[in-house]
Amino acid sequence: MSEKEFSGYKGEALASIRKVGADVGDLIRVTKQKEAHEGILIPRSEYGDETHIVVKLKNGYNIGIEITPDTTIERIGKGTKPTFAAPPQPEQNPQLPRVTILSTGGTIASRVDYRTGGVRPALTAGDLYSVVPELAGIARINAQILFSLFSENMTPQQWGELATAIAEQAAKGVDGVVIAHGTDTMGYTAAALSFALQNLPFPVIIVGSQRSADRPSSDAATNLIGAVTAAASAPFAEVTVAMHETTSDDSIVFHRGTKVRKCHTSRRDAFKSVNASPVARIKNRELTMLTQDYKKRGASQRLTLKPEFNDKVALVKFYPGMNPAVIDWLVDQDYRGIILEGTGLGHISMKSFGAVRKAIVKNVIVGMTSQCVWGRVNMNVYDAGRDLQAQGVIPLEDILPETALVKLMWVLGQTKDTDKAKRLLKTNVAREISPRTLPE
Amino acid sequence: MSEKEFSGYKGEALASIRKVGADVGDLIRVTKQKEAHEGILIPRSEYGDETHIVVKLKNGYNIGIEITPDTTIERIGKGTKPTFAAPPQPEQNPQLPRVTILSTGGTIASRVDYRTGGVRPALTAGDLYSVVPELAGIARINAQILFSLFSENMTPQQWGELATAIAEQAAKGVDGVVIAHGTDTMGYTAAALSFALQNLPFPVIIVGSQRSADRPSSDAATNLIGAVTAAASAPFAEVTVAMHETTSDDSIVFHRGTKVRKCHTSRRDAFKSVNASPVARIKNRELTMLTQDYKKRGASQRLTLKPEFNDKVALVKFYPGMNPAVIDWLVDQDYRGIILEGTGLGHISMKSFGAVRKAIVKNVIVGMTSQCVWGRVNMNVYDAGRDLQAQGVIPLEDILPETALVKLMWVLGQTKDTDKAKRLLKTNVAREISPRTLPE
Repeated sequence: MSEKEFSGYKGEALASIRKVGADVGDLIRVTKQKEAHEGILIPRSEYGDETHIVVKLKNGYNIGIEITPDTTIERIGKGTKPTFAAPPQPEQNPQLPRVTILSTGGTIASRVDYRTGGVRPALTAGDLYSVVPELAGIARINAQILFSLFSENMTPQQWGELATAIAEQAAKGVDGVVIAHGTDTMGYTAAALSFALQNLPFPVIIVGSQRSADRPSSDAATNLIGAVTAAASAPFAEVTVAMHETTSDDSIVFHRGTKVRKCHTSRRDAFKSVNASPVARIKNRELTMLTQDYKKRGASQRLTLKPEFNDKVALVKFYPGMNPAVIDWLVDQDYRGIILEGTGLGHISMKSFGAVRKAIVKNVIVGMTSQCVWGRVNMNVYDAGRDLQAQGVIPLEDILPETALVKLMWVLGQTKDTDKAKRLLKTNVAREISPRTLPE
Repeated sequence: MSEKEFSGYKGEALASIRKVGADVGDLIRVTKQKEAHEGILIPRSEYGDETHIVVKLKNGYNIGIEITPDTTIERIGKGTKPTFAAPPQPEQNPQLPRVTILSTGGTIASRVDYRTGGVRPALTAGDLYSVVPELAGIARINAQILFSLFSENMTPQQWGELATAIAEQAAKGVDGVVIAHGTDTMGYTAAALSFALQNLPFPVIIVGSQRSADRPSSDAATNLIGAVTAAASAPFAEVTVAMHETTSDDSIVFHRGTKVRKCHTSRRDAFKSVNASPVARIKNRELTMLTQDYKKRGASQRLTLKPEFNDKVALVKFYPGMNPAVIDWLVDQDYRGIILEGTGLGHISMKSFGAVRKAIVKNVIVGMTSQCVWGRVNMNVYDAGRDLQAQGVIPLEDILPETALVKLMWVLGQTKDTDKAKRLLKTNVAREISPRTLPE
């Protein structure tokens, strides 16, 4: 029994499972304070602590159990090791479009038929065809693992690397790219790619799943089929997020990368377009455009790659009683930009005005968004808004706070000149600003 | 022409309007770079700068115009000073319930027929009856001005004072209380009162308006009538927010104070109940309960006032690339609590784990909520969540991040004992935690 098979276990936790001769994949029963849990012992991530073991229960959920002196572990069944042998890759139909799937991690990118719950990145084309055989009829797929990250660990550095990898695919002349991504920060990455990849020749479809593929309600396969279909043949050439439109399985929508937000922790239709219509929908295998305002496939001859992001930009959500010294602290730390998530039409307390003024005097760019999420900031209605504008705060229209953060990181990656940066921040680069509509 | 009449103007701005003999309330024309704006010169707040004047245009919007050497001001009409004489207060019907309206500021609390746009708090019962005569048929109203604040300037200190003022009304035996409040932070105040006022004998209805009362589309009167009706006679005894249910004027809903959020910058139906049903609806003057899970009017004999809030609590919204040193900084500043607004089910980057651990070791209480807004955190699904819990991060179920912030401020106002505080934070005090539902 090698150390490796206990992947992630160490210290007390490792000792306790060794003692009873249990191995990852075995069925075990853990009893503690008269409560018993049965399930499969699953591997831990390398970041696990030394006192918990993790068991995958019959209902598909994993629980962590702390090993204390009153904990008893029994090994009640031998694990059948996952034997995952991908079938030979189907012959590729040379008539079909070429789609590259780049995997960054997340639930959708894990090997889809695993039973232990341990996340193992596995995304060869063969793996995918074996799990979602429909894909072979849609496109010739080339799959690559770029990162293996839970998406909360993605950083601006990785956005740039991902954009560069997509540009390489464009140079190879593929017909579309799919990015498999954890859902947690998928909206941020979608915005980042929207700014970093200009004049795209094809669609870049970011796809995730809200339910792991080993649960009956998983949305992984449907989302993936939708994403590959759009990458292969959709008429738009933009960065979009492909996820369920409703809780039912029959409709996938494509949200514009700069206008999309995860608006539910667990629902399959968690992603919503905010202050904009989704770009397109696939239902019954038919793709329908939902807007006429989009960039067309093939309209650009040459992709422009601008993958630099400056991470010295902070998002500050305002709240009653907020200490404005946090803004001074950011300035002291040499931050170059601050996105405020103000209240209502774009307000913060008057008590914070002084700190904002000091930041702007030091050439920090300060942009205003609204924590309302929906709607548009309007800093002309009240004195407070006018005064903040007079100090140099830039009202960011109907841009989502998260997209505004990403945009300012990108803007400050493009230029060190404050005036140029301000102009670029106000420019509608990737349809992140919707046209003004009449007041409701 | 006294200094006072120029309320708010100083420096260059004051000089420029003095030069042409214009006074607040006068019709003026301002020409700049060949563009002319006509409107009424309106007062500025005391926080205005020295270079802008503010003009109320015919369409009801105010614009700020910077006085530069190329700006010409003409006085083209004499202002008729607002002569607001409230009619004698109607005889009060002794059969009607007694409702107290406490005004804290905001659009709804300003004198409703003003024409200059300068916000003047004016909320005598006579003012109200003259503007919304329907009120006289609903309740005997006593109106008081408590604060005159734009709500982005409310602080935890004022939440406590407001709660105390409501408790005084309870002692007087009134039948309900209405709070007129700016909409920007109405959700935060609603949560604060929900925790500070326990065993309420009557409804406390917080009401605002999204459109100022001088615009044809104003929602002020309808919201106020709904709020007073509920305060006078609704069967529930909870803190709720009364606002438009849709963009049409015929339906007012009452959102539970702990579950409500401003979800649009400008729409009249901006407020939404999140992860919960609204408590009640008034349509065609009929009040309908929308849930059976509510506290009944008169069920409590004695209100318990707990108005202390500790403002050493911060809300930190996580984003990719966030510098965890901001958490260290908060600990250095002697913060006692931190609410994290994590991604998805309640995650932050692994890079931040160390800072969180250090905070908890120093007895800072750290709670986790989700920036998804909708849904419930679940820190048992992924290793990252389990590890954060093992470090002592408290998952806050389906509590809104804003409500969680207010609750932790309140909890740390009630006790200095960390263990007691953690227990109280996990306790469902004011229906801020919805019962778990089956997974969708």
